[in-house]
Amino acid sequence: MAEVLEVKVEDIVTPWEVSTNSSSGVDYDKLIVRFGCSKIDDALLQRLSNICPQPLHHLLKRQIFFSHRDLEEIILRIEQKKPFFLYTGRGPSSEALHLGHVVPFIINKWFQDVFDVPLVIQLTDDEKFLWKNLSISEVRHLTRENAKDIIAMGFDPKKTFIFSNFEYMGTCPDFYRTVCQIQRLVTYNQARAIFGFNDSDCIGKISFPAIQAAPSFAQSFPTVFQNLKKPEDVGCLIPCAIDQDPYFRMTRDVAPRLGLPKPSLIYSVFFPALQGNQTKMSASNPNTSVFLTDTPKQIKNKINKYAYSGGGDTVAEHRECGGNCAIDVSYQYLRFFLEDDQKLEQIRQDYSSGKMLTGEIKKELITLLTDFVAEHQRRRAAITDNILEEFMTPHPLRLPFI
Amino acid sequence: MAEVLEVKVEDIVTPWEVSTNSSSGVDYDKLIVRFGCSKIDDALLQRLSNICPQPLHHLLKRQIFFSHRDLEEIILRIEQKKPFFLYTGRGPSSEALHLGHVVPFIINKWFQDVFDVPLVIQLTDDEKFLWKNLSISEVRHLTRENAKDIIAMGFDPKKTFIFSNFEYMGTCPDFYRTVCQIQRLVTYNQARAIFGFNDSDCIGKISFPAIQAAPSFAQSFPTVFQNLKKPEDVGCLIPCAIDQDPYFRMTRDVAPRLGLPKPSLIYSVFFPALQGNQTKMSASNPNTSVFLTDTPKQIKNKINKYAYSGGGDTVAEHRECGGNCAIDVSYQYLRFFLEDDQKLEQIRQDYSSGKMLTGEIKKELITLLTDFVAEHQRRRAAITDNILEEFMTPHPLRLPFI
Repeated sequence: MAEVLEVKVEDIVTPWEVSTNSSSGVDYDKLIVRFGCSKIDDALLQRLSNICPQPLHHLLKRQIFFSHRDLEEIILRIEQKKPFFLYTGRGPSSEALHLGHVVPFIINKWFQDVFDVPLVIQLTDDEKFLWKNLSISEVRHLTRENAKDIIAMGFDPKKTFIFSNFEYMGTCPDFYRTVCQIQRLVTYNQARAIFGFNDSDCIGKISFPAIQAAPSFAQSFPTVFQNLKKPEDVGCLIPCAIDQDPYFRMTRDVAPRLGLPKPSLIYSVFFPALQGNQTKMSASNPNTSVFLTDTPKQIKNKINKYAYSGGGDTVAEHRECGGNCAIDVSYQYLRFFLEDDQKLEQIRQDYSSGKMLTGEIKKELITLLTDFVAEHQRRRAAITDNILEEFMTPHPLRLPFI
Repeated sequence: MAEVLEVKVEDIVTPWEVSTNSSSGVDYDKLIVRFGCSKIDDALLQRLSNICPQPLHHLLKRQIFFSHRDLEEIILRIEQKKPFFLYTGRGPSSEALHLGHVVPFIINKWFQDVFDVPLVIQLTDDEKFLWKNLSISEVRHLTRENAKDIIAMGFDPKKTFIFSNFEYMGTCPDFYRTVCQIQRLVTYNQARAIFGFNDSDCIGKISFPAIQAAPSFAQSFPTVFQNLKKPEDVGCLIPCAIDQDPYFRMTRDVAPRLGLPKPSLIYSVFFPALQGNQTKMSASNPNTSVFLTDTPKQIKNKINKYAYSGGGDTVAEHRECGGNCAIDVSYQYLRFFLEDDQKLEQIRQDYSSGKMLTGEIKKELITLLTDFVAEHQRRRAAITDNILEEFMTPHPLRLPFI
């Protein structure tokens, strides 16, 4: 583990591992100082709100997307009618997505809808092949299953291109050229310092970061972005979780040396495991996660059994002292998924004061998630292979302001 | 420079540098012991000759291709009518090819003609982009110019696929998948030990060896090799200069772990610089090289002025002691390019005895090379962009015995 990625003795935050020993979770204030990114403060939210034709999304308002790099650049582009696109991704290492995986796609869809910008979604099947003990065909299967879940979140194929690295690398020479341009500018020393690689890591891992970096640049999509006369004039906004920052620190370091614009980023906090803030939800441990494939019974059981409570030890104590929303997992999940601000505030007050019991806040969450997951499953069932191909075959997307 | 690649204090042999302080040139006997490859001895040549419908090529007979790995496997395949293909390559770092560049293509063409096997030729434009301070468009230009020179050596498009890595990577997903399969099995430690990389090298260099390795496996060419039901049953013979051995040591190490056949190799000695055996001919120093673009006058002047002579210091001394063919560059070049065995032996005897003077052996060489280069230029002038596309667009090649 590279020293630079350890926020304090307890917090470990890399693209492959997030953990802390603090019961209040990762210290995000210290993390952004260490990473060198910025806080999304009220003034910046206000600026975004001023140019936004709709109210800000609750993931922004509640500062779940709490940190950024150069979000001002994107606000300027919108103000000045200059083109940009959205880029996010997913590593297809598990068959079922969990709630944490959904978060970046929700905010990407919101930006896409509100500002009418295209979105490219990288599925890093090559990364998972290199990191995990999976075969090419296993990774291919996971990639397609994950893509169907992403599509089911409501994306429009006219504005969205989803690509597997294994497939797209073999389709678009400009993608590989961009990867090589980046690889030429990053030394092993730098990659080791940024990502914590060591000499026993395979050479595929060591050069992979350039492959996650490349879609930050419009020149990687010559057949996707129409009328792309000057790809170096096109900006990029990448909404993702903050553990991905090492990739984009590197990307932003090489961009000016390639004569290309630095991508802008907004970063979310981690979606906590059922067991609490010490780690993020992880698909590799089913009891930490609510999956999009879970039945209503599974959701109910998991939340009742595992969701870490910030309530009192006894009903009497809870009535007297109230619950602690800062560590209560049910409340945290409601912050991510309950859109109604007033209702969330009421729950916060009632739970904090002790008026609402742990069983009651869990019941609120169970109802919300059961509906959310059932609705997702309904949409997911309609995603055919043909629809998948429509999203994953390179096809023209219209850039705004071009 | 990795210790493992230094044959003795003086000899440096890597894919990027060949030099020795010994006036007799690289000590090839020591080199093959250090590399762990084998000598092509008389018995092996006899076995090859037994299955060969034509007399062995003079580059084989004269043991200019002097070393191998598992050439017996290819002989067995021919005997048992099992399929194989030929693979060689070139790094397009200079506009004009010199005589040394021609040698591997001559022997590849001979194998292709005699055994009716397809040949794939990798142009490592990505490697040259990563190693040299060249732009993508400069590398593209060099790649196309070099490909035209290779085509002019007489290859048949029905049996030959020439590909640029930048282009083919973006055309064939199986190529990139094979690259990742290899990259997963090679650690940075191993790459450093094999190639002499250091921590200041860019991550593109570090992962590049997998890209040169991948075409050793038929699975990298699913649309090129027809009826390829079991790519793991197809063998590969790679004729090249011995400085490429590090790549194929690595390739042969990973092959069994991928369930794929190890490629077989035959290695040539280096084509000496005009100045003598201490280094190989290099395009980056024009005075060390005879180029395929040189005029008759340039060829004559270079050989008369620079070709290192093994003759006596004076005519009288030469007549008495004779010339030293082992260090005489003109004689060395005649060994590579003069097909007539009897004539070469006569020259050797006459020059060694002192009957033939340095000016006379140079004249023989000048005549031979002037004709060779003029004939090449005549064929080269006829290579149009359409012919280039015919070779470089993936197209079906028939594997024998399939």
